[in-house]
Amino acid sequence: MLLSYNQLYKFTYNIFKAIGCSRDHATIATKALLAADIRGIDSHGVARLSGYVRLWEAKRINATPKIKIIHETLSTATVDGDSGLGLVVAPFAMQIAIDKARQVGTGWVCVCDSNHFGIAGYHAMMALQYDMMGIAMTNASALVAPTFSVERMLGTNPIAVAIPANEQPPFVADFATTTAANGKLEILQRKNEDAPLGWVQDKNGNSSTNANELKQGGALLPLGSDREHGSHKGYALGSIVDIFSAVLSGASYGPWAPPFPAYVPMPQNMPGAGLGHFFGAMRIDAFRPAKEFKQHMDNWITRFRNAKPANGYEKVLIPGDPEREMEAIRMKEGIPVIDVVIDDLKKVGEKFGIEL
Amino acid sequence: MLLSYNQLYKFTYNIFKAIGCSRDHATIATKALLAADIRGIDSHGVARLSGYVRLWEAKRINATPKIKIIHETLSTATVDGDSGLGLVVAPFAMQIAIDKARQVGTGWVCVCDSNHFGIAGYHAMMALQYDMMGIAMTNASALVAPTFSVERMLGTNPIAVAIPANEQPPFVADFATTTAANGKLEILQRKNEDAPLGWVQDKNGNSSTNANELKQGGALLPLGSDREHGSHKGYALGSIVDIFSAVLSGASYGPWAPPFPAYVPMPQNMPGAGLGHFFGAMRIDAFRPAKEFKQHMDNWITRFRNAKPANGYEKVLIPGDPEREMEAIRMKEGIPVIDVVIDDLKKVGEKFGIEL
Repeated sequence: MLLSYNQLYKFTYNIFKAIGCSRDHATIATKALLAADIRGIDSHGVARLSGYVRLWEAKRINATPKIKIIHETLSTATVDGDSGLGLVVAPFAMQIAIDKARQVGTGWVCVCDSNHFGIAGYHAMMALQYDMMGIAMTNASALVAPTFSVERMLGTNPIAVAIPANEQPPFVADFATTTAANGKLEILQRKNEDAPLGWVQDKNGNSSTNANELKQGGALLPLGSDREHGSHKGYALGSIVDIFSAVLSGASYGPWAPPFPAYVPMPQNMPGAGLGHFFGAMRIDAFRPAKEFKQHMDNWITRFRNAKPANGYEKVLIPGDPEREMEAIRMKEGIPVIDVVIDDLKKVGEKFGIEL
Repeated sequence: MLLSYNQLYKFTYNIFKAIGCSRDHATIATKALLAADIRGIDSHGVARLSGYVRLWEAKRINATPKIKIIHETLSTATVDGDSGLGLVVAPFAMQIAIDKARQVGTGWVCVCDSNHFGIAGYHAMMALQYDMMGIAMTNASALVAPTFSVERMLGTNPIAVAIPANEQPPFVADFATTTAANGKLEILQRKNEDAPLGWVQDKNGNSSTNANELKQGGALLPLGSDREHGSHKGYALGSIVDIFSAVLSGASYGPWAPPFPAYVPMPQNMPGAGLGHFFGAMRIDAFRPAKEFKQHMDNWITRFRNAKPANGYEKVLIPGDPEREMEAIRMKEGIPVIDVVIDDLKKVGEKFGIEL
């Protein structure tokens, strides 16, 4: 089923209003959430709306948070999200990073007591309009086993980096620090298809093609898949995201990160509050004139786009290309939403008397 | 052949003095270079000493550089390395990052016109003694093909992140953004052994087990190996390192990065000067009290160390564990140096009348 952006926007906004969000917060949250649908990252958009509502019902999400800075220096801040929607807390924190960068060249903000913030790339991209580079990352509930382990210790812990160019579109990398994002596995589960070897392992630590392995005690694998192919690097990257986002901010980290599904009990003896995020903004002209840098980025992007393709491939992509192309198509033609998500949205709407 | 740290130190220091380095610079360069040998990263230590000398002979390395800040804000600086040894330029730049962090919470320094800086981890670890987190990265000569390409566009572009703990040793990640570092491939070449699939591709873009593939027009693969296993993420990471280190600083980037072997001609139409680096220092107490953070890091490290191991593995490692264990052994028992490197060092020594 194809829905227009405006149709999804109105529905999502009304749901956020219905759980008690202010107009401002509902607007901010809706834009952040739908950035995923519009950019083709279907697992992180309206497909998660009912999940947020269930977390609110379970009193794990506070719809009227008092988000505040609890510690700061000229280039840093620590933000307490007051259990708010990550979709609202993250833009608040990223704006502080941008404001600090305006003053002293760069700004770095870590966040505790937050929740799932949608796609990392959306927050990183907030910096672009100010001729800044943006960085966003978050920890997440534990699904990933470190190299040599069978225990789920880390989330898919994504990293996003957005870098402006001049005439070329910006460079926007946004990726889970696992071989495959959990959303890709969910797609295979729905289709009842096998996963490639190297995405998941079973509960004994053996690589598996069973897309349902996580329901049977298995785990996602860090980027690199196995030791021989550098999984210790993916494990290190996921750990860095966990430490910057959660240990630094006072959020709950590692295997104690709060779970997204509201029916999963909260971990015992949590060492901090909620999920953690980490944001950065670097003003380009704190390093070299922005115009000069952006012209070199055009040169960089053009050169990489023209790198000789391998047999069977048309061209080399720049990080952000697929999502931008998807955005152009979906803003024009609408956003395809699968039946199971439509049903899910309708059920959420019924709770509050809101029609899709 | 086992050599003591002191023996290698004296020899290396004297070589750097012989090419014209000041006492201070020779000391700084020797410590940085030998950090690789002592930590077990044999490809980046004295095995490269003759390569530095050849670059000096080719007038690509300036032994008496005037390293200076060419642009700065309260939290940032751009440093011109004046074609100096990266081993000297990098600690200079990292110290600026640390000084800025002391003032405003964080410090971020990019560097142009530098050369190979040894191991990234050494520079990142400089921050630890100040209760700061350290970050170091560098671009390097192009050996890596982006996803979907057969052209070498990026270096192995390593990232290092050092994070202090309390009673536990620090977390120190230091890794190439490729599936395997080039040094590992060189070891297989010397032994005449095959590489695992996923490390390199041939000149047509087919995955290959031939460890000599790079000499025949092949390329190293980004972390992830192929698209299905996330090589676009390794390609994005390597690109971010290239942009932060070189496009931001005014160094030469992508396929135009200067080559390490002095016999390889410099690229034509270089868009910047020399190699680029990027350094960061974040004061822990710019976010939360350092003692509190470090105690949580102890908890993080202990929990991960005790994660349930997979069958056949003894324990989960923390990034930095293998190098620290190696350092303890080598400081006591000496550093094993293979015959071909010994011969190489002797030949360099003969040039200047310096005995190994």
